[in-house]
Amino acid sequence: MFISFEGIDGCGKSVQSRRLAQILGNEGRQVIHTREPGGSTGAEEIRRLLVEGDGERWSPETECLLFTAARRDHLERTIRPALAQGKTVITDRFADSTRIYQGAARADLRMIVDQLHDLMIGTDPDRTFILDIDPEIALARGNARGGTEDRFESLGLGFQQCLADGFRHLATEFPDRVRLIDASGTVDQVAARVRAAL
Amino acid sequence: MFISFEGIDGCGKSVQSRRLAQILGNEGRQVIHTREPGGSTGAEEIRRLLVEGDGERWSPETECLLFTAARRDHLERTIRPALAQGKTVITDRFADSTRIYQGAARADLRMIVDQLHDLMIGTDPDRTFILDIDPEIALARGNARGGTEDRFESLGLGFQQCLADGFRHLATEFPDRVRLIDASGTVDQVAARVRAAL
Ligand SMILES: Nc1ncnc2c1ncn2[C@@H]1O[C@H](COP(=O)(O)OP(=O)(O)O)[C@@H](O)[C@H]1O
Ligand SMILES: Nc1ncnc2c1ncn2[C@@H]1O[C@H](COP(=O)(O)OP(=O)(O)O)[C@@H](O)[C@H]1O
Ligand SMILES: [Mg+2]
Ligand SMILES: [Mg+2]
Repeated sequence: MFISFEGIDGCGKSVQSRRLAQILGNEGRQVIHTREPGGSTGAEEIRRLLVEGDGERWSPETECLLFTAARRDHLERTIRPALAQGKTVITDRFADSTRIYQGAARADLRMIVDQLHDLMIGTDPDRTFILDIDPEIALARGNARGGTEDRFESLGLGFQQCLADGFRHLATEFPDRVRLIDASGTVDQVAARVRAAL
Repeated sequence: MFISFEGIDGCGKSVQSRRLAQILGNEGRQVIHTREPGGSTGAEEIRRLLVEGDGERWSPETECLLFTAARRDHLERTIRPALAQGKTVITDRFADSTRIYQGAARADLRMIVDQLHDLMIGTDPDRTFILDIDPEIALARGNARGGTEDRFESLGLGFQQCLADGFRHLATEFPDRVRLIDASGTVDQVAARVRAAL
């Protein structure tokens, strides 16, 4: 089974995806935890091109191509081999992030993202959990986390609101695959909601 | 005007594309000379991912995506701005190389290359010169050149023959754009043929 966690920065994807991997591992399943962009040797090198340097470094279209190249590598080298061995794969972000982040920045990019996905990826997780949260709470969590990632603030609260709406809309677009999870409350409360929804 | 030089390794693309840039410059035109993969800051970084490491580093599909990402950057940051300033752009390889190299390696990849091209590049040069030469002569030239690039030999003479046929076929596929140039003889003789065909 192939599971992804999605949602805005600070919603709890990293914490909850690791937590679910641990829970399923304790239940006796073989689980691998991975993340995007990255998750394989080649994809991590492409990730470096994407996250380093200033925001104008790549055009949105080139960025879409690099995300797709990284995802293709991640799929071929990490995800598919693990699934073939009967393992459960849990990823912190997958294609929905590209759909929402690029699509929210420019509506016409969503079409490019979808066409690249159909042509070069052609698959989506079996189950996707969108961690749904008020962007102001996510911002507060992110501030508490500290660290060097200031993407949340650089994008602005209004844009995060727009992303949160986009993620929420995915549940309507892909009703079989996507589950919306209330991500407010404690880590344990959210983890229990995720486990119940699985 | 946007001009590309194409053909197998050792056919003379680098020498002849620089020579034509020089000739047109002497005639008073503003010319820039560039190359692929690479030709812009970002594309050169992607080139490094493509040429370093072993041959199994990327799958053919991921390679197609990386070539397309590099080409998109090259087009946006180098080629289009120069054309917009009225300059003539001469490039040592462009999309035809991807069509032929990937397509010769695996027939179904040609379709992927074409679809990525239509979606993300959408343009071809105004004029393309295929330097047509017997692979054995090209091999001898390459050997004379020395250096560390041993791609010709690692691919093998039979494969170079297959590539040469593929490049020749492009003249039939794109008759308006592509000109086949006899690349045997001296550098001056070939340069004169190119100038006459322009
Ligand atoms: N339910 C929660 N309550 C309070 N803080 C949380 C909760 N979930 C995550 N956090 C904290 O919020 C920050 C962002 O969580 P993280 O999992 O890194 O989010 P994301 O990966 O979605 O950006 C981290 O510091 C994390 O420890
Ligand atoms: N017409 C020619 N006759 C003899 N040697 C040539 C000729 N054209 C190019 N060469 C030499 O052959 C080698 C390959 O040429 P080059 O332009 O680098 O080919 P390519 O860029 O197509 O691989 C170089 O060493 C070059 O100097
Ligand atoms: Mg995270
Ligand atoms: Mg060359």
